[in-house]
Parts: sequence; structure tokens; C-alpha cells
Amino acid sequence: MDRTPISPPSPAVLALARERLAGLATPPGALGRIGELGAWLAACQGSVPPRPLTGVRLAVFAGDHGVAAHGVSAYPSAVTEAMVRTIASGRAGVSALAREHGVAVTVLDVAVDADLSDLPAAVTARKVRRGSGAIHVEDALTADETAQALALGASLAGELVDDGAQLLMTGDLGIGNTTPAAALVAASLGLPADEVTGRGTGIDDEGWTRKRDVVAAALVRASGRTADPVDLLTALGSADLAATVGFLVEASRRGTPVVLDGLMSVACAVVAEALAPGASAWWVAGHRSTEPAQTHALKSLGLEPLLDAGMRLGEGSGAVVALPLLRSGIAVLRDVALLSEILPE
Amino acid sequence: MDRTPISPPSPAVLALARERLAGLATPPGALGRIGELGAWLAACQGSVPPRPLTGVRLAVFAGDHGVAAHGVSAYPSAVTEAMVRTIASGRAGVSALAREHGVAVTVLDVAVDADLSDLPAAVTARKVRRGSGAIHVEDALTADETAQALALGASLAGELVDDGAQLLMTGDLGIGNTTPAAALVAASLGLPADEVTGRGTGIDDEGWTRKRDVVAAALVRASGRTADPVDLLTALGSADLAATVGFLVEASRRGTPVVLDGLMSVACAVVAEALAPGASAWWVAGHRSTEPAQTHALKSLGLEPLLDAGMRLGEGSGAVVALPLLRSGIAVLRDVALLSEILPE
Repeated sequence: MDRTPISPPSPAVLALARERLAGLATPPGALGRIGELGAWLAACQGSVPPRPLTGVRLAVFAGDHGVAAHGVSAYPSAVTEAMVRTIASGRAGVSALAREHGVAVTVLDVAVDADLSDLPAAVTARKVRRGSGAIHVEDALTADETAQALALGASLAGELVDDGAQLLMTGDLGIGNTTPAAALVAASLGLPADEVTGRGTGIDDEGWTRKRDVVAAALVRASGRTADPVDLLTALGSADLAATVGFLVEASRRGTPVVLDGLMSVACAVVAEALAPGASAWWVAGHRSTEPAQTHALKSLGLEPLLDAGMRLGEGSGAVVALPLLRSGIAVLRDVALLSEILPE
Repeated sequence: MDRTPISPPSPAVLALARERLAGLATPPGALGRIGELGAWLAACQGSVPPRPLTGVRLAVFAGDHGVAAHGVSAYPSAVTEAMVRTIASGRAGVSALAREHGVAVTVLDVAVDADLSDLPAAVTARKVRRGSGAIHVEDALTADETAQALALGASLAGELVDDGAQLLMTGDLGIGNTTPAAALVAASLGLPADEVTGRGTGIDDEGWTRKRDVVAAALVRASGRTADPVDLLTALGSADLAATVGFLVEASRRGTPVVLDGLMSVACAVVAEALAPGASAWWVAGHRSTEPAQTHALKSLGLEPLLDAGMRLGEGSGAVVALPLLRSGIAVLRDVALLSEILPE
């Protein structure tokens, strides 16, 4: 994987966009973050005013996690398969939201612990393995599998961009996924298990304690392997999370902005920024999830989420729900009169 | 004006909607506020699942304020006329946002201190007066004018509902408008001028002090007139704010939900709730503005805003930008599979 630094969206275009924003028939700064989003998207596109967002694509990476057999989740792994099928049939939570907001969803079976071969090849053809390792007792992946997963995420991002995507989003699906994601954040930022462990889909106090202990054991097991982000994914990640990292790096390298979702998306963003410094300038955070590790990860990336709606669905839903704010930013930069046009001579 | 209490959206339908929400193929509570919005809209409509929102209408009430001649704003009153013309021509900040999100905008010249008679009668035919009084030295309106403004707001709401509006929004436009709005909040909630005075469109420290002194003088002048919400509007409001109050009360009485905007909208909501107890159950707060009085007013109404994007444009912009979250809530209740449909037998 190419680890060279990534250039930010054009500073020159950003300055031009901010100049246009300041010249609109609105008081300076009155559009708040909406105006800033419009300017950032203009810089990403290299165009002032920015073009309307067409081709918004969400990639949902699905996989199971060995830790799910150790009482860290409110649901059994079998639910992962059911949810992949529900997304594939367009009836999941994110499906409804994506339809409402004009987002095309691609779901990939990266490491679901079930046979999904009856689904279309677009969903299943890139599968890495059935389930990733239970990170408190073993590595999540082999080094080869990590490379394979990173590459498949990168290739999907490239394909979507080649297909005309102007904005990308990532989501994750898989029972147990908040455990490796929390571990990645803790290892990356040097935080204890207590501070990164959340309730996931809704575990009770006893479940939380088990989950915290799993994260703590994983951090002990993988200590000394935090310096290299790829080895970190091998030790503490999963195939779906590694694919997400590859996707984020490639999107940035291709100059395509990304809306991040909740914990999985933002945990992978931390690893992706370590892998390709500067990549984060191409990302915006869709929402604040209820997972504490997401807040730590956002802070480390310097990102402030657009929404705080108490969501914890995953699947990319928090990115999709934030999309209209980006469209709002583009609309104001495109369609509001300039002060110079409306003031009396 | 009818001051009888207003019944909330159907508790029975709300319970049914929450039951459906709990049965969706998502973990309990995972949709956060999005799910709650959907359930509330279902209750407002009396239908589970709720219908898609068509006929979303924003009413922008425009007027000038005598206080603007006393150094409380960064802009001169002449800007009000220019902005009404900019909205009427579809090129204001809110125009661009409303187009993007499918909202029809009605702007009314309630008390602009200019001759706008060249604009369509729909904009100008209900004008109450040219400018409202400078509230620190005189009443904003006569009692007759207050009644006239309340009635025109109520009649506009009724007309929009008769015309098929399923969701309403209010915005305000007029240089100086945050001063009477802050005074209404202070008088209604018993707060000192210091705590309600904000920067409006962007005044400096000296301007802030002048504005605070104007609010304080207005509160002294009108002391003893806070018990009756209509007399309060006469003393400390303005024609555009009184029209907004009438609009909010009538919308609730007609059983039509409303998205509130920033300070003016929420200040009027406080007065409208005092006038017609229970009305606030039909409202949701679109965004948190940067004006401190809005936060006090929201708290008194028990409303938590959907967005916090640092906006302070007015014109209803913060309500329009929040609309996609309501549409998201409807989408999930309509289109997400029920858990009972996807689980293996």
C-alpha cells in the first residue's frame, strides 16, 4: 500500500470559495458550518462555486468477529448474515435513509461467517475469509489477509470514483465490530480499555465489563505492535475494518471527499491517517455516535461531527443522514446572490 | 384570539408509532432522534407509518424596528427592504436552501419601513405599518395593530394548511429584530438584559453594550406588562413578531407541525405557548442559533434543537436546513423492514 503523504484539497480554491462566501448577501459568518462545508467541497472539487453533488456512494463493509462468541454483543453473529441480506434487499435502516437522500449503497461481504454465495457476485466476490480472529486471544488476520483486505477496499474506492462518484461514505456491518474498532482506537491513541468501551448495540453492565476485559486483553496481547498501522490491523482489526482503511486512503489519494460514519468508520480513519498522512483533510464527520471511542478518535483527527442525534445504528447511516448539510453548503455557494448584486448603486 | 388550550398530537398514534419503531430491524433505540422524529410526525399526522412530507411551507415575516436607529445592529434599516426584494426574487440565503430541500417560501411585508408596493400583492397586501416602535422609549404597536398582526399570521397559517401544507416553518427578516425578540424572552422568563443580548448579525463590543442597554430600558419601561402575552407583544414586540405568534398558534390549533428557526421564531414560540397552552407539542426546534436568548427560550419550552451549526442568518434558514432530518425519520418508519420479516423462522 502506498504510504506517501496525501495533499489536501486545493488551498487556492478554498481561499477563492471563502472569498465568494464572504461576498454573499448574508452577514459575514452567518451561514456557520453550512458555508464552511460549501467552501471545503469547492476546494475538493477544484471549482468555485462547487458543482451539485451527484454520484454519492456508500460502501458498507460486512464481516464477523471472533470476539462475538465471547459475550461482547447483545446479538449473535447470525444476525450479521441477516443484516447483509436485508441491505442487499434494500430494506435495512441505511437503505431507507439512502433512498431518501439519493445515495447508492454497495454492500460487500468481506468476512461474514456464513455462506452468502446466493447473493450477487458484486456482494460476495471479494470475500477474504469467514469471520476475523478473536483479537483477545489471536491475531484478527494473517499479514496476507490484511494486505488483501486493504487492497479490496482501495480497489472499490477506485472503481466508484471511476464510475463518477463525487462523494463517498463508509459504513460497517457485523456483530461484534465495535470491539476491534475500540481496540484500534485505544492502541492508536494510547488509551485504556475503560475509556474506549461502549455499549455497542445495547449490552448491559455485565456485558460491558466482559467487553472491556476483551479489549484490555487484546491491547496487552498486541502491545508493541501499534507503531505500524498495517500490523495493527493484522493484530487488532478485522478484514472489514482493513478494507475500510484501504477505501479511505484510496478515496483521499484520488481526491474524493468522504463523509465518515460512526465508530468503525472513524476508527479506520485514525488508522488510515497514520498510513497516509494528510488523508484526513478529505474527510468530514457525519455524526457523533454514542460510542466513547468515536469521540476520542474524532478529536485526534480534529474533526467535529455535523450531527449529534444519538444514533448508533452503524451501516453508514450517520453519514447518509448528514448528507443534506453538504448539499446545503453547495446550494448557498451556488445560488445565493452576491451582496454586490443586490445593494443599491 | 382564541386562548383555549391546544391538544397535543395523538398520544395513541404516538404509542403505535413507537411500537412500530421498536419492531424495526434495527437495535432498540439505535435510530436515536431520527426515530423519535418519525414517531412524532406520525402522531401529528395521525398515521402509522407517517406519510412522506409534501407541502412544506416557510412563512418569512418581515418588518423594521425603531430600535435599529439606536445603534443596536451592524446594518441600517435600508437592508431590510433589500433583503425582502432578494427573497422575493429567490436569491436570498434561505431561497437557495429552500429550493435544495423542497420548501416553498412565502415572504410577507408586515412592517417594513419602505414602500414595497411594486412587489406582488401576496407579499404586501397585509402590511400593518411602516416599522414598529422603538421599544425602549415607546410601545412597539397599538393594541389594534397587535390584534391585526396576530390575525394576519393566523390567517396565513390557515390558508397554507387549507392549501395542503403538511409542515410549516417560520422565519423573520428585519434589521434590529433580535432586540425585541431578546426583550420578549427576557420579559417572559424573568431574565436580565445581560443574559439575552447577543451579537445579532455581528455587532462589536460597543454595539453590544448599546443593545443591552436598549433591552434593559425596554424591560423597565414595560415592567408590569408581562402577564398578558398580547399586551407584551404590544409593549416589546413588533408587527412581524406578533404575526409569527399568530401563525404558530393557528398552526398548532389546526394540527399542523412546525419547525422553529432561530431566536425570533423561538421567542415567538414562548409567547405563543403562553397564549395557547399546549401549542408547543406541535413544534420541533430546527437549530441552535448563536443568540443566547434562543437557548433560554428553547429550554423553557423543553425543546432540544436538531442542529448546532453556528448559523445566525435568520430568514427561516435554520428550520429549512433541519428538514431532511424529519424526512429521515419518516423514511425509516415507512421503509425499514420489521424484525419479524427478516428473522429466520
